[in-house]
Amino acid sequence: MQKYGGTSVADPDRIKAVAEHIVATRRAGNDVVVVVSAMGKTTDELEALAHQVSSAPAAREMDMLLTSGERISIALLCMAIIDCGEHAVSYTGSQAGIVTDTTHRKAKIVDVRAERLRDALDGGAVVVVAGFQGVSTESDVTTLGRGGSDTTAVALAAALQAESCEIYTDVTGVFTADPRLVPDARRLDRLSYEEMLDMAATGSRVLALRSVEFARNHGVRVHVRSSFTWEPGTWVVEEDEAMEQAIISGVTHDTSEAKITLSHVPDRPGVAAKVFRALADEAVNVDMIVQNVSMADHTDISFTLPKEDLSRAKKVMEQLVEDVGASGFTPDEGIGRVSLVGAGMKTHPGVAATMFEVLAHEGVNIEMISTSSIRISCVVQEADVEKAVRALHAAFELDQPSKAQA
Amino acid sequence: MQKYGGTSVADPDRIKAVAEHIVATRRAGNDVVVVVSAMGKTTDELEALAHQVSSAPAAREMDMLLTSGERISIALLCMAIIDCGEHAVSYTGSQAGIVTDTTHRKAKIVDVRAERLRDALDGGAVVVVAGFQGVSTESDVTTLGRGGSDTTAVALAAALQAESCEIYTDVTGVFTADPRLVPDARRLDRLSYEEMLDMAATGSRVLALRSVEFARNHGVRVHVRSSFTWEPGTWVVEEDEAMEQAIISGVTHDTSEAKITLSHVPDRPGVAAKVFRALADEAVNVDMIVQNVSMADHTDISFTLPKEDLSRAKKVMEQLVEDVGASGFTPDEGIGRVSLVGAGMKTHPGVAATMFEVLAHEGVNIEMISTSSIRISCVVQEADVEKAVRALHAAFELDQPSKAQA
Repeated sequence: MQKYGGTSVADPDRIKAVAEHIVATRRAGNDVVVVVSAMGKTTDELEALAHQVSSAPAAREMDMLLTSGERISIALLCMAIIDCGEHAVSYTGSQAGIVTDTTHRKAKIVDVRAERLRDALDGGAVVVVAGFQGVSTESDVTTLGRGGSDTTAVALAAALQAESCEIYTDVTGVFTADPRLVPDARRLDRLSYEEMLDMAATGSRVLALRSVEFARNHGVRVHVRSSFTWEPGTWVVEEDEAMEQAIISGVTHDTSEAKITLSHVPDRPGVAAKVFRALADEAVNVDMIVQNVSMADHTDISFTLPKEDLSRAKKVMEQLVEDVGASGFTPDEGIGRVSLVGAGMKTHPGVAATMFEVLAHEGVNIEMISTSSIRISCVVQEADVEKAVRALHAAFELDQPSKAQA
Repeated sequence: MQKYGGTSVADPDRIKAVAEHIVATRRAGNDVVVVVSAMGKTTDELEALAHQVSSAPAAREMDMLLTSGERISIALLCMAIIDCGEHAVSYTGSQAGIVTDTTHRKAKIVDVRAERLRDALDGGAVVVVAGFQGVSTESDVTTLGRGGSDTTAVALAAALQAESCEIYTDVTGVFTADPRLVPDARRLDRLSYEEMLDMAATGSRVLALRSVEFARNHGVRVHVRSSFTWEPGTWVVEEDEAMEQAIISGVTHDTSEAKITLSHVPDRPGVAAKVFRALADEAVNVDMIVQNVSMADHTDISFTLPKEDLSRAKKVMEQLVEDVGASGFTPDEGIGRVSLVGAGMKTHPGVAATMFEVLAHEGVNIEMISTSSIRISCVVQEADVEKAVRALHAAFELDQPSKAQA
């Protein structure tokens, strides 16, 4: 199973390079199933077109529109493979048996009926499948949302019991930090599903969160690597298979969120429920939530949310301040989140303390903290994010594989 | 039933104009089914892309590729209709139940299973269907070849027993001659299926030949009109409904063909069969065939063929000259065909004689002649085509409706 992202098939030359790699894999004696995204900026261009004909494009029609993007890339890739002398057949999501629920624009896969692909593989063909798309239980065309092609690839790898799922992208793997911020960031050879989940949830853009969840739930071994250098990349596998157990696998950051603090809220049961129910009803995607210790029967509640949900959230908050008897609320768009992720954290106390010391030493003020068993996240001012990431990467010696091991 | 060609939906503004017209039709109390082609030059651009990744793009994959074009236009058109406040749902050829044979790139419709469209219409939706495409009996995506969207529209009109099939295009109807050549060419209000068939076969580009055959076979009343002016255009109907029975409906011309003459062929049984079997085996699309009266046991055979088939035909002829004992062959790319079409010809002798006199008077040499009951075609030198068309249009007074009537 191989998956190629949009940059990997951005133009005819890239498509030919990918075709050659696929043909080499096939000629090495492997059955090959390929999942492809739309070429380069195709999806963005189609979305722009939609907004030119409609102020609020209908979701069902948006799915019909966007799925033409992968249809173009699968056909072109098959042509290029056939030109290299191998048999190849393209399949839309629907033809490949990717059955989803009926939620347009972010459908969930409910079944994979891969008989047709199995027959094609048995017939000796390279199978090329359109990523990101499926057909709903009501026979409508659906899309899987952001990162949907990764999910298609992992789902098909599970259904076809593929040896592994290679995700080809424009980076060479998963790094200990974003290399654009930290020049000595190191590519990880292996990490566990859980670590990858926490890294994806806190800012790593290499793999979509849902595809990692799917891989973990179905035990699909994922190999993230580059279609530009073709060198081995990062394996995402079961924890016990991830032999080199690092305390910290990486530092991630995310500046796509905003923060809202609701001040001087009466500290009585049901208040938090009221606040977050009202936000959920307006489809505001709340991420971190922190409630301070109560002082004189009142408390502050802070939460983070995607910046694009902020204007909707503000309307909800205006109403809520009155309803719950708070003194007011403060939105802050200028925040960022810095996180440490590592499975070894579970057995190594003191990581959080070290993290806070490092940030204090850099003069970075911590505004919110949240933790899981393998992750510590701190919300800081957006302007401090780069400094914080670099300092943490250096303090935990993430550039040196031996030091980072448990 | 309304069908919109590529120029009618070439850009977002055009799509919005078409959406408004559809909404007006719907609000006048009609059930509306719309068939759409790909936007403007999309199909050409996709074909060019295919040739950048493959020297000989696989037909199955070319169909997968090209069908993305209508997928884009149906989705955008639905969004625009929904923006105007009407309910609209898009369907690919496959979803619309257009079942074809397995001949990629020029599939034939073998069945129309329109239940899903009927349900959508019953639910009050405007139904928008991708033209030019279908799904084969083996569940592969197919396309119907040149003019395929017209055929989709006519086939759906037949299956849904639509009142009529409106074909919206960038001209206002079918004219007595090409208005670019003959400024006083007149738009015809009505003409019979047979006349339209002969006009399409001899150079009129307004309707694809196959869609007219389909309309005739299923009695679908076709209305060809402009999506730029929205004025009434030309009706193509049964002959007895075409009340104003003209002797001549129009002059057509075609300069896309070449001519080959095989000289001094022994005049014995089986020679013509041998010649045209050999050409058919190489997929050379022979159109007109004329064999001269035999002189001293030898004869000449001339035929016309599409210019793009000429190089293949030449190879066949080189071999044949020897095989059949001819003296040689002469290809000629510089020819054109001028035709007179009119149902009234059947009952009005002398049309052919007049045609030949007119051409002689203009000094135009006739190289080949072929006739049907409602058509006379003459092959002339390509340089004489315009002059011939203008002279015939004037001689038969086609600019004056009253004069052209029987």
